[in-house]
Amino acid sequence: MAMSRECDEPLVMCVTNTVAANFTANVLIAAGAKPAMIENPEEAERLAAVADAVLVNVGTVNDDQAEVMYAAVSACARSGTPWALDPVAIQLLDYRRGVVDRLLAVSRPALVRGNHGEIDFLRRERPVLSAAVPLLSTGPVDRVYLPDGTVEEIAGGTEMLPRVTATGCAQGALCAAYLGRGLSPADACRAASRLMKTAGERAAARASAPGSFQSALLDEIYICNMENKL
Amino acid sequence: MAMSRECDEPLVMCVTNTVAANFTANVLIAAGAKPAMIENPEEAERLAAVADAVLVNVGTVNDDQAEVMYAAVSACARSGTPWALDPVAIQLLDYRRGVVDRLLAVSRPALVRGNHGEIDFLRRERPVLSAAVPLLSTGPVDRVYLPDGTVEEIAGGTEMLPRVTATGCAQGALCAAYLGRGLSPADACRAASRLMKTAGERAAARASAPGSFQSALLDEIYICNMENKL
Amino acid sequence: MAMSRECDEPLVMCVTNTVAANFTANVLIAAGAKPAMIENPEEAERLAAVADAVLVNVGTVNDDQAEVMYAAVSACARSGTPWALDPVAIQLLDYRRGVVDRLLAVSRPALVRGNHGEIDFLRRERPVLSAAVPLLSTGPVDRVYLPDGTVEEIAGGTEMLPRVTATGCAQGALCAAYLGRGLSPADACRAASRLMKTAGERAAARASAPGSFQSALLDEIYICNMENKL
Repeated sequence: MAMSRECDEPLVMCVTNTVAANFTANVLIAAGAKPAMIENPEEAERLAAVADAVLVNVGTVNDDQAEVMYAAVSACARSGTPWALDPVAIQLLDYRRGVVDRLLAVSRPALVRGNHGEIDFLRRERPVLSAAVPLLSTGPVDRVYLPDGTVEEIAGGTEMLPRVTATGCAQGALCAAYLGRGLSPADACRAASRLMKTAGERAAARASAPGSFQSALLDEIYICNMENKL
Repeated sequence: MAMSRECDEPLVMCVTNTVAANFTANVLIAAGAKPAMIENPEEAERLAAVADAVLVNVGTVNDDQAEVMYAAVSACARSGTPWALDPVAIQLLDYRRGVVDRLLAVSRPALVRGNHGEIDFLRRERPVLSAAVPLLSTGPVDRVYLPDGTVEEIAGGTEMLPRVTATGCAQGALCAAYLGRGLSPADACRAASRLMKTAGERAAARASAPGSFQSALLDEIYICNMENKL
Repeated sequence: MAMSRECDEPLVMCVTNTVAANFTANVLIAAGAKPAMIENPEEAERLAAVADAVLVNVGTVNDDQAEVMYAAVSACARSGTPWALDPVAIQLLDYRRGVVDRLLAVSRPALVRGNHGEIDFLRRERPVLSAAVPLLSTGPVDRVYLPDGTVEEIAGGTEMLPRVTATGCAQGALCAAYLGRGLSPADACRAASRLMKTAGERAAARASAPGSFQSALLDEIYICNMENKL
């Protein structure tokens, strides 16, 4: 499911953490999407209304950025723009749990992408959300938890993926990009999972340490997209 | 026009976006300049007065960072430090148009670097600025719009450049670096354009996907500077 | 002194600058540590109490981030979590000197990592601190200033290290990681210095320009850690 060949590039507005911002932008471009990172509420409201999808990642959220996120998802609620939530470390930190709950009270995301600890927390503690939207739990085996109770597993990938920071965050951005392409939330989770695992495997075949793997991963996401095979 | 061989490294103070900060710093170092990224008004005022040049890039501006920019360009107005403006997405977003207009009311930049959409907007909507300073519009063909109405075109480069985030932002920083070296604004635009296009061509000759291209581009900017040929 | 083989990965909470955040996270992961970048006071207070070590780097500090730092070191003072200070450009900028002095009034760091200009300033102007904790001054030759007046020199490394932004900042983070592993402050300085110099030498042997060197450096930090030789 390549993004660049079949239609215009989807515009993905991101409110994300400072560690992941550059890598996320590069992954989105490599995958045929157009990223726009936003850090003020006025622009977030404006752009969320016209973007193809929005990503909200709470990895380094603070009071100021929480307002940007609130403006973004409020605009999504009005315009119908789908948004993806990445609840980084939500099971560990009360502050960002409060931020996420405030966002959920305004607008339901189309999907959630997290690691196993984050998604397990949401499944246990936020059952209304878990019963409503797909949850993508990423790790050695990715799991897509569907609202009907089905769990799909996607194997593959490489142990190098967690050795580069922000690969999980970038996968959340890819979920948003596939939403922006018009895929259903469940298909967006599946497509992002397959793309990251396939590109990760290919990158690991030629790079066995994290610096060269990071470059190779971006290369392979780009090549996957160009090949139009995923 | 290499920077490192002929004089001390110019100090380039940058107020730039979170996506571009790391890559911009690396590009400036590779090109023989000394970057200083600043995020508070007091330091911006202090450092702008002694820097060789200042870069203001509004890519992820918010209220707090707008104050940093305002302090920086106010200090430039008093000290005569030249500054370069990168008006990211100014044609699309009212908020940052307001920020830029507030800066322009205080101090005129030495030059503006943008993509074709941004520069076309300024030429149409801010004719006083366009009649006063060179505008560098970057894309497949770079265009230098001179105040006297002349338009110079600089071809070359590679289609890989827009496939890595922040290459345009880094070109704006190179413009500032050349200002800091003492070049005229028009020559700074030309030198930055030639350096990015030459380094881009060389990098594309050995890297055909964005991850490896990003590394190769930094390498080639460094090699160009060492060769002292541009 | 590899970190990953002998025990669980130390959790290193970082309050650091926007330029260094991504590279620092990748260096910490490569060295077998677990980074957590934090940007709000509530989480800083919470996480500093349970982290194995904390890094405070003032490279792009502003009023908001200063509150995060203050919350972090206040929690360190209560919990006994060791913290490392990276006083970027303290000798040049009054604002961040004020921030650092405010932090020092609350809690003494376990060590300080800076470049020669920064450490020379502290030795001259903050003698109480210099008499209490090791100072690691990094450059072509790293120097560890011990509280008893001894100065140790660690040679090696490569001239490529300062040609990539944030390698010094990442070395400060490595100091924090070794504190988190339970090393004494002096040993943490020594171990971080040896790791960066060894990895730098190996990286320079296969990469002679900064883009490829940056990737190779991350690779070699990872390989050093896997080899368990440092």
